[in-house]
Amino acid sequence: MTQVSINNEEIDIVIAAIQSDLTSFLEDWRPFISQFHLIIVQDPDLKEELKIPGGFNIDVYKKSDIVRTVGSSSISSLFSGYSCRYFGYLMSQKKYVISIDDDCMPAKDTSGNMVDIVVQHITNLKTPATPFFFNTLYDPFCKGTDFVRGYPFSLRSGVPCALSCGLWLNLADYDAPTQALKQNQTNNRYVDAVLTVPVKTLMPVSGINIAFDRELIGPALLPGFKLEKEGKIRWETVEDIWAGMCVKVISDHLGFGVKSGLPYVWRKERGNPFDSLKKEWHGVKLMEELVPFFQSFRFSKESVTAEDCVKEIAEAVKERLGRTDPVFARAADAMLEWLKVWNVVRSQQASEVS
Amino acid sequence: MTQVSINNEEIDIVIAAIQSDLTSFLEDWRPFISQFHLIIVQDPDLKEELKIPGGFNIDVYKKSDIVRTVGSSSISSLFSGYSCRYFGYLMSQKKYVISIDDDCMPAKDTSGNMVDIVVQHITNLKTPATPFFFNTLYDPFCKGTDFVRGYPFSLRSGVPCALSCGLWLNLADYDAPTQALKQNQTNNRYVDAVLTVPVKTLMPVSGINIAFDRELIGPALLPGFKLEKEGKIRWETVEDIWAGMCVKVISDHLGFGVKSGLPYVWRKERGNPFDSLKKEWHGVKLMEELVPFFQSFRFSKESVTAEDCVKEIAEAVKERLGRTDPVFARAADAMLEWLKVWNVVRSQQASEVS
Repeated sequence: MTQVSINNEEIDIVIAAIQSDLTSFLEDWRPFISQFHLIIVQDPDLKEELKIPGGFNIDVYKKSDIVRTVGSSSISSLFSGYSCRYFGYLMSQKKYVISIDDDCMPAKDTSGNMVDIVVQHITNLKTPATPFFFNTLYDPFCKGTDFVRGYPFSLRSGVPCALSCGLWLNLADYDAPTQALKQNQTNNRYVDAVLTVPVKTLMPVSGINIAFDRELIGPALLPGFKLEKEGKIRWETVEDIWAGMCVKVISDHLGFGVKSGLPYVWRKERGNPFDSLKKEWHGVKLMEELVPFFQSFRFSKESVTAEDCVKEIAEAVKERLGRTDPVFARAADAMLEWLKVWNVVRSQQASEVS
Repeated sequence: MTQVSINNEEIDIVIAAIQSDLTSFLEDWRPFISQFHLIIVQDPDLKEELKIPGGFNIDVYKKSDIVRTVGSSSISSLFSGYSCRYFGYLMSQKKYVISIDDDCMPAKDTSGNMVDIVVQHITNLKTPATPFFFNTLYDPFCKGTDFVRGYPFSLRSGVPCALSCGLWLNLADYDAPTQALKQNQTNNRYVDAVLTVPVKTLMPVSGINIAFDRELIGPALLPGFKLEKEGKIRWETVEDIWAGMCVKVISDHLGFGVKSGLPYVWRKERGNPFDSLKKEWHGVKLMEELVPFFQSFRFSKESVTAEDCVKEIAEAVKERLGRTDPVFARAADAMLEWLKVWNVVRSQQASEVS
């Protein structure tokens, strides 16, 4: 791949602790993340004390920290369950944030080498994205590849990459119905590629293994879309899908790119898809409403920052989707609440620096 | 991959003979193509007799056949050089056409198995395409994969796939400047994936290794965009890029999909990129005009077949690009000429059947 410099001071690794014992998780990842600053956010619903091995540079945030920052009223709408990770995004002061679910282990590539997710994510983010024309040999900024004959030269410099979506081996990120139907189907196909998802194309962004440029689109990685019966199982959640739609339409509007593909992580099994089936269908049905909404969304010219864009989406969600299902009205409120909290924390951090 | 049935009677394999000795080419491919009907079109500029080994079911078309069908006046604008393949597309009466350049050999996959391009291309064409939403685990109809959590159920049935664009190992399909600059850069990355190129996204379709559903978009795989100084080297041509833009916008309009990725072929070196540099820049410059043209192209509602669509594009090319560069006016004329020839051959074939 293109050689990019990795500056340890530019990177935060955010882990949402859904389970209390992080020992094996952190030991597995130690070779790749011990030199970076870690932000661990404990799910406020989790009562037990976290178990964290020594030798890491970590800030841990617990329920009391979240309450102190945002008040207790906003906790459940913004930062409970899988969404506690967003509190870590909020507290980060680094340019790049990398986030992986706590049931993931490092994966191996096809040569049997352990995948360094930090190097790959940061390479994805530091090299340009090419959303305006598809390159058939995938990301032209990967090692050993280039723009294919016929690729317009005027589009070869690309645009800044805002989001890097990594993938998963073993347990794939299917919804509960698919997981229930094909229980033995694991993902074993290592696709050795990164690509820019084209402009105006939406995708299901998974929060399992992502990285983003916080300075470009920080406020767009937001919590808010929470299903009433969602539990502590990935396939019961859609918060990341919603945040992903926001990031993608905002990136399209602001002229940034989104990449998908490498790096992979290895996902261990957790939960029983049959138990989740009843809960998950609500999310599945809601996708049918929200995809056309995001596909047809057009920003006003006045929205020139990620923050402006989030505000505009939230208002439109309230107006156009609010009456369809109460979950949409709640999402809109949560997004506006998130923006308030975002600004409070930003100004606190600014005053600490000065 | 999804098990599809391969019906030998539905498939034509079209080879443009740019070189006269096809012995090693056909021997290399024999295990994969000997059971299918082959159409070999000899480049009308090629004077030597073709060398073709026995044991194949082949129709060979030479200059005299082309003249008899289209008259001598249209040969140079439609069917000379790499474009002679389009005469094979014209003569085919099968549902599926597969076409590979005569400097390609079968490739090996990452397990060392020879790639069966027929099975892979036909699988790509017979399984649905999903152009309206990007699936992060690539083509959900490939073996062992599926739609990722968050993929709308209403879009999971997909649309018919019209075009399958395969890739190349070893000599990549770069333009002459890139090839000259990075002479030692070969493509060694085997990306084990197929994906649908999203709706409204253009791409540089390469004619080196493609397959298409002739019944869906036959008339759109057309010759016409010919550079004045183009020679017998792939990187000097852009005819396939132009045809690919036509197919893509037409597929988008008619509700078909285009896939890219597997299968790979192995390309041998041919030609010296330095010699081609002077010629190629014209094509490179023209891309800057034609990409915005195709990106902004909107069909009228009256265009409901591939043929209607080709006609509409040709007229718009003449009107909007014709004065920019004479090559565009010639391309528009060639496209209209092609449509005439297409209809003549179709009605001849129909009268032969009845």
